[in-house]
Amino acid sequence: MLADDMAAVNALIRERMASEHAPRIPEVTAHLVEAGGKRLRPLLTLAAARLCGYAGADHVKLAATVEFIHTATLLHDDVVDESDRRRGRPTANLLWDNKSSVLVGDYLFARSFQLMVETGSLRALHILSDAAAVIAEGEVLQLASAESLATTEDIYLQVIRGKTAALFAAATEVGPVIAGAGEPVVAAMRAYGDALGVSFQIADDLLDYGGASAALGKNVGDDFRERKMTLPVIRAVAAGDTEERAFWTRVIEKGDQREGDLETALGLMRRHGSLESTRETAYDHAARARAALAAVPEGELRDLLSQLADFVVARLN
Amino acid sequence: MLADDMAAVNALIRERMASEHAPRIPEVTAHLVEAGGKRLRPLLTLAAARLCGYAGADHVKLAATVEFIHTATLLHDDVVDESDRRRGRPTANLLWDNKSSVLVGDYLFARSFQLMVETGSLRALHILSDAAAVIAEGEVLQLASAESLATTEDIYLQVIRGKTAALFAAATEVGPVIAGAGEPVVAAMRAYGDALGVSFQIADDLLDYGGASAALGKNVGDDFRERKMTLPVIRAVAAGDTEERAFWTRVIEKGDQREGDLETALGLMRRHGSLESTRETAYDHAARARAALAAVPEGELRDLLSQLADFVVARLN
Repeated sequence: MLADDMAAVNALIRERMASEHAPRIPEVTAHLVEAGGKRLRPLLTLAAARLCGYAGADHVKLAATVEFIHTATLLHDDVVDESDRRRGRPTANLLWDNKSSVLVGDYLFARSFQLMVETGSLRALHILSDAAAVIAEGEVLQLASAESLATTEDIYLQVIRGKTAALFAAATEVGPVIAGAGEPVVAAMRAYGDALGVSFQIADDLLDYGGASAALGKNVGDDFRERKMTLPVIRAVAAGDTEERAFWTRVIEKGDQREGDLETALGLMRRHGSLESTRETAYDHAARARAALAAVPEGELRDLLSQLADFVVARLN
Repeated sequence: MLADDMAAVNALIRERMASEHAPRIPEVTAHLVEAGGKRLRPLLTLAAARLCGYAGADHVKLAATVEFIHTATLLHDDVVDESDRRRGRPTANLLWDNKSSVLVGDYLFARSFQLMVETGSLRALHILSDAAAVIAEGEVLQLASAESLATTEDIYLQVIRGKTAALFAAATEVGPVIAGAGEPVVAAMRAYGDALGVSFQIADDLLDYGGASAALGKNVGDDFRERKMTLPVIRAVAAGDTEERAFWTRVIEKGDQREGDLETALGLMRRHGSLESTRETAYDHAARARAALAAVPEGELRDLLSQLADFVVARLN
């Protein structure tokens, strides 16, 4: 059933991505929407709706809405400034220029709003438009808190709630809402999505330092080079002495990064156990997600959602 | 009445622009939203609703929605590419970097959707989300057709319908819709907004060449330097001989612009009467806007809308 639903989502995405007047649009989005998308967010909406016994067709529209919002934010994340390029940051939008990334992202946002309006569910519209505002706020907050050692775990959590968990929570909440489920189920599904999203992002941020084992892979260190204050860094900074603080000030706040600095940073994280404790925090949130499911109807789909919570942290092993 | 309504719109804009978590947001938008905004678009929504006897308060929310969408598109228009800077284009976002322009624009888009959802009018939601999609499509189309002599008047009209008339038409259509007016009135108000928007943009594009008199002012020639295919250029190119075509190919398609080229371009436009004929076209659309008003209730507000149609082209005299 979910496989059929997902095929319908994919067909709808292809249909609505097309633009009669601006054929360039699918060209820009195709590599994002078609290729290797894990489709995790739309899966959450589909499973949440079916789990609550939904028998209509609007969950497909809401699932496509969620994926469009996600793709639009990816496109807008690709926008870079000259100063970033100078700093040697990896340029995400090599394929497309800034202007195209912005405008095609806007088009996908607009398409997503059209789709959700078509469902006629004002409550779903409230949830998703609120999520869109929280996402944008989180991105601005991240921009403002980047490169600052003053970033606390509270601010970090707020940032990742905005950039990741807000859409996860909206994706899982609209399912029971259109299924007409009771309020306890709606609240439980929202709590599940929120915890899953937080766990997912913490795991991602940890993987950027090679995971708890700090295994140096191909993409390790991107966040370090971009001077992002993610949880492993925040905890290592908090536990560091004066000398270590001088190191972090140089590489994160001043952006003066030299050969071997990433290895030094990893060494400090290992010394203070901040990679291991970050891993534990990711697991805690995954457990919180599983626990939230106690209030929703039992069955195969609940098991699937529970396994998803295991899956987001299993990447850390 | 309209003055009170507009004061309410301004208060609502200030309230919703604020962000508890990301105080940088109002800082970025203040100069756009507070300063010298003509507030033409929200005025259209307020007048259209009142004209149809609307006595509720949702027209204020819809008017603020329209202004937020407009401001967000302005912010996203500010995003530039390095290649643009190299070309000597005026950099609109000197104050704010690309990333801030994108993210704060996204925040305003999200806020606008929240506002319109609060009205609970699904029909208004349909109209405004459709407009948002047409706006984004128009921007992409403009990007694709820029710098190409193959741009026809049809493509030009499609571009300006997207970038300007779509929001004007939505702004005037949602007024009668929330007022519960009859379909002929809704259709007439939409036709008025569309014609007004087309007239407004053609006038703007003509003023960029100094108006029908080609008076060289401070900002004259911006579109020329940005190699935009606006109506005066399209008509001059169409009427030109082989030698003139070589000139246009050099300055618009190749972007090889030299001292005196703007004056040459203006001379060609004058020779072929393309400035004068563009002025006539702007007047034609203003007349179409006024004519559409025949189907809406008489009175002071209808007179105001009729005067607005005169006003957008009066700038050309």
